[in-house]
Amino acid sequence: MLRLYDSLVSGNGYKIRLLLHQLGVAFERIELDLGRGQTRTPEFLAKNPNGRIPLLELEDGTMLAESNAIQWYLAEGTRFLPEARLERAQVLQWMFFEQYSHEPYIAVLRAWSHFGSLDEHRAEIPERRARGEAALALMEGQLQSNDFFVAGRYTIADIALYAYTHVAGEGGFDLGPYPALAAWLERVRSQPGYLPITEG
Amino acid sequence: MLRLYDSLVSGNGYKIRLLLHQLGVAFERIELDLGRGQTRTPEFLAKNPNGRIPLLELEDGTMLAESNAIQWYLAEGTRFLPEARLERAQVLQWMFFEQYSHEPYIAVLRAWSHFGSLDEHRAEIPERRARGEAALALMEGQLQSNDFFVAGRYTIADIALYAYTHVAGEGGFDLGPYPALAAWLERVRSQPGYLPITEG
Repeated sequence: MLRLYDSLVSGNGYKIRLLLHQLGVAFERIELDLGRGQTRTPEFLAKNPNGRIPLLELEDGTMLAESNAIQWYLAEGTRFLPEARLERAQVLQWMFFEQYSHEPYIAVLRAWSHFGSLDEHRAEIPERRARGEAALALMEGQLQSNDFFVAGRYTIADIALYAYTHVAGEGGFDLGPYPALAAWLERVRSQPGYLPITEG
Repeated sequence: MLRLYDSLVSGNGYKIRLLLHQLGVAFERIELDLGRGQTRTPEFLAKNPNGRIPLLELEDGTMLAESNAIQWYLAEGTRFLPEARLERAQVLQWMFFEQYSHEPYIAVLRAWSHFGSLDEHRAEIPERRARGEAALALMEGQLQSNDFFVAGRYTIADIALYAYTHVAGEGGFDLGPYPALAAWLERVRSQPGYLPITEG
């Protein structure tokens, strides 16, 4: 059975939980406490030297890291990943956008809020907030003329972007100015096999 | 013919120049001056709303953004991208590592140095340097027992990581403590069709 090293506070972990649930694939979930440094122990670093969850352990013991790489591995050959060369590259385009231009701002402000460290990062907040708003505005633009990010249907690009966007309010972002984005959040929530971020 | 919007100072652009050169694919290269804001003009934002290069324009006018997504598109079906499902996911693992845990530190310190803005970012430098060193140390660990990052051979994962690592010194990083990494840099440089970062 697949084993997922995970944390319920992590949107990156949620991508994998949600996809596995929608695929109907059974897995064992190991919850780690990020606030207590459980991803930085020697034991965990032996599994993932980058000290991060999610981490997927395959049945032969192989470890796969990076949430969007894990998603790609699991989605290959399923309805969650298109087959056409260009659409596959577009899925990756949005997943790299998510990790580079979205997660470091929208997820990080949520994490600082969650772990009570907003004060110590006060000087960095305005720029992170501005860059997060820029990411949301860019998503809004794409969604004004598309129901989903790629190929007109729900793919792992949507899962990747949904994970932290739908809880952006926990980091102080107001989604009010983004109606197309709000409608897309509802479309994602209505997919078969949907699982809330708070559930394993 | 493919058209690449690019900048010779960009390691992300270099990934695409190098791969296209090694594939023997002809392309038109459009040089943009990042220091003069040429990726933030209304004309360019109509091509890529994220205002970044590299940007690949396909022969039908379709625009593809994000350096590692462009690499994936171009490498599909070639020797630069393995065929096995796990190895493909491992290529992505290293490419997402590059964009999340490597580029924001190693490339950004180089860019600040290049554009003369180290002083204005002085407070951020120690953490960026520490995280850059952590990325280099993690690469060193992988390369102590592997000639290349995935599948024992040169792939787009190597190109992705080579692009900013081989010029890390321009951002003040000393590669002396990383002998396995230095040997890998030489292996990459010796690949057929190698192109220096300064050449289009």
